[in-house]
Amino acid sequence: MKYDPKKLREFTSQIMQKVGLSKDKSDLFAKSLIKADMRGMSSHGLTRLKTYSYRLEAGLVDAETEPVVISDFPSMLLIDGKNGLGVPSAMKAMELCIEHAKHAGACFAAVRGGNHFGIGEFFTDYAADKDMIGIAMANGPIALAPIGGKEAVLGTNPLSISVPSKKYYSINLDMATSVVARGKVALAAKEGRSIPEGWGIDVEGRPTTDPNAVKCMVPFGGAKGFAICLIIEILSSCLSGAATSQTMGSFYDFSGKTQNSGFFLGAMDVSKIMDVNEFKKNVDNLADSIKNSPKAEGCEAIFLPGELEHRRTVVAERDGISISDAVLSELQEISKMYGVPFACEM
Amino acid sequence: MKYDPKKLREFTSQIMQKVGLSKDKSDLFAKSLIKADMRGMSSHGLTRLKTYSYRLEAGLVDAETEPVVISDFPSMLLIDGKNGLGVPSAMKAMELCIEHAKHAGACFAAVRGGNHFGIGEFFTDYAADKDMIGIAMANGPIALAPIGGKEAVLGTNPLSISVPSKKYYSINLDMATSVVARGKVALAAKEGRSIPEGWGIDVEGRPTTDPNAVKCMVPFGGAKGFAICLIIEILSSCLSGAATSQTMGSFYDFSGKTQNSGFFLGAMDVSKIMDVNEFKKNVDNLADSIKNSPKAEGCEAIFLPGELEHRRTVVAERDGISISDAVLSELQEISKMYGVPFACEM
Repeated sequence: MKYDPKKLREFTSQIMQKVGLSKDKSDLFAKSLIKADMRGMSSHGLTRLKTYSYRLEAGLVDAETEPVVISDFPSMLLIDGKNGLGVPSAMKAMELCIEHAKHAGACFAAVRGGNHFGIGEFFTDYAADKDMIGIAMANGPIALAPIGGKEAVLGTNPLSISVPSKKYYSINLDMATSVVARGKVALAAKEGRSIPEGWGIDVEGRPTTDPNAVKCMVPFGGAKGFAICLIIEILSSCLSGAATSQTMGSFYDFSGKTQNSGFFLGAMDVSKIMDVNEFKKNVDNLADSIKNSPKAEGCEAIFLPGELEHRRTVVAERDGISISDAVLSELQEISKMYGVPFACEM
Repeated sequence: MKYDPKKLREFTSQIMQKVGLSKDKSDLFAKSLIKADMRGMSSHGLTRLKTYSYRLEAGLVDAETEPVVISDFPSMLLIDGKNGLGVPSAMKAMELCIEHAKHAGACFAAVRGGNHFGIGEFFTDYAADKDMIGIAMANGPIALAPIGGKEAVLGTNPLSISVPSKKYYSINLDMATSVVARGKVALAAKEGRSIPEGWGIDVEGRPTTDPNAVKCMVPFGGAKGFAICLIIEILSSCLSGAATSQTMGSFYDFSGKTQNSGFFLGAMDVSKIMDVNEFKKNVDNLADSIKNSPKAEGCEAIFLPGELEHRRTVVAERDGISISDAVLSELQEISKMYGVPFACEM
């Protein structure tokens, strides 16, 4: 059974409106949430709708607030998200960065008072669509131990960068700073499989292949990846005044604590220093040279960052997406709870 | 035998003046070159002086040119290095970014017509000293194959970011985007040792432990690291109009081809959106929490990015640095060649 992205966006938007979010913000949020599923990043998609809507309903996230610009310079902004939903807060910050970049050339925004912003690609591809290079990062609750450590000190702080191109839609890097997502360890545990060494460490800081023994995730790329994760943390929290990975609230903590996460977003206007068509031609040529380079034994194709995700999105928009039974039953549950019919089959 | 950094800087500056570089630029270059040795990054230090000076003497690098600002926006600059030496060109770009950032909040410069700029930390710590967050990246000649490929398409494109702090001088990430430097493979080959799997691939794109069979280096962190390397390439070359990793000239190519490498540098003025002392306190607290977190079995200390390098620099400035016999004989060779006495012992 396949489900229609358009109907899923409408369903999602109606659920969010039921818990008090404006129609505009609900539509924007729905676009981001369903895009995660379409890209194959289902950990950030409909599986979270129940929690997103619950957090609004319970007042853990403020449905009616608006982000406030605290400091406003031509290329540097400080914004307080005022505990509003993450997607509209981050998109507002990106829109301001784009407007500022049209004049100054580039602009960055540090955001505090944030909540989980979904997939960073949603904001950076929005910038790339406008011929800007888009950048988005955020901190998240602790999950990564430092090199040589055995306790989590940083989140799997994500980084997204999108670059406009002509032939490839956009070159998009969108990654967590752990080797793999925590969800992959949970899935292996559930299915009784071992995990490859290098994904996680146990309570003593030793590498482990037992998913049940994993205490902390491991940063991608060793000390280099940890350093990148730390820079993301500094830009997201130390610079904005948001909580750190260590002090922020969890998306799944319903005790009353707000998240107060931090974002750092920015846009650079290519046209200020390079003819946009020439830039895109440069990017396309470079991308072609990588895709067409000789393949290693057993490799059928070389993919650019974001290429597979973009292909999946195009196919999903046309043919629909699959939804797991577990997620489906959650959607039916909130359908009943809020009186919004779930009729999203293709 | 230890050598005095101050005397080594003076020696280096005099050599560079002999091949036509101004005293100011020679002094700046010498500071960068000796700092590489002091930090323990000797691959970027005195071992390259003979080639740096030869390239100027042979006219492969223009000693008398000045960088030209082609596009000048409040937060975005395009600069042509006009085939001048990399260190003064990149420092000029960073100085302009810092000046612009004082007004606009942040500023970035794409630089073309560049030559090897040494260690990126030299420029980013310069920004951090002025309470700015400094960023520097550059492309380099091809060395990395893409994931699934077997031919080099990108350089080991370096990235440096420095963040001002109070207690830790600066938090500094300064890394190549390969797992290890190519020099480590060459050294293993010379000493007849095998290398760990994951450093390089052979002519068929297979992982190899034989240093003599390594054809391409491997990106750090797999597909994520390759994506970061590609973004650095795009910002350094596609955006600036410089040559790409694939078309640029090598530092060690003396046939007459210029390098025309690209840089991308920037500075963000912390004070625009956050009290600088509060920011530094935030960074120090975060850094403390990482350093003081429980250690894994067998680990004696957790180090922050750049911490070991900074410690080495302090010790080297006080106690001097060691120089290998191979490098020493090169220094004595150019000492004779240019009539500059080499008397740099502590």
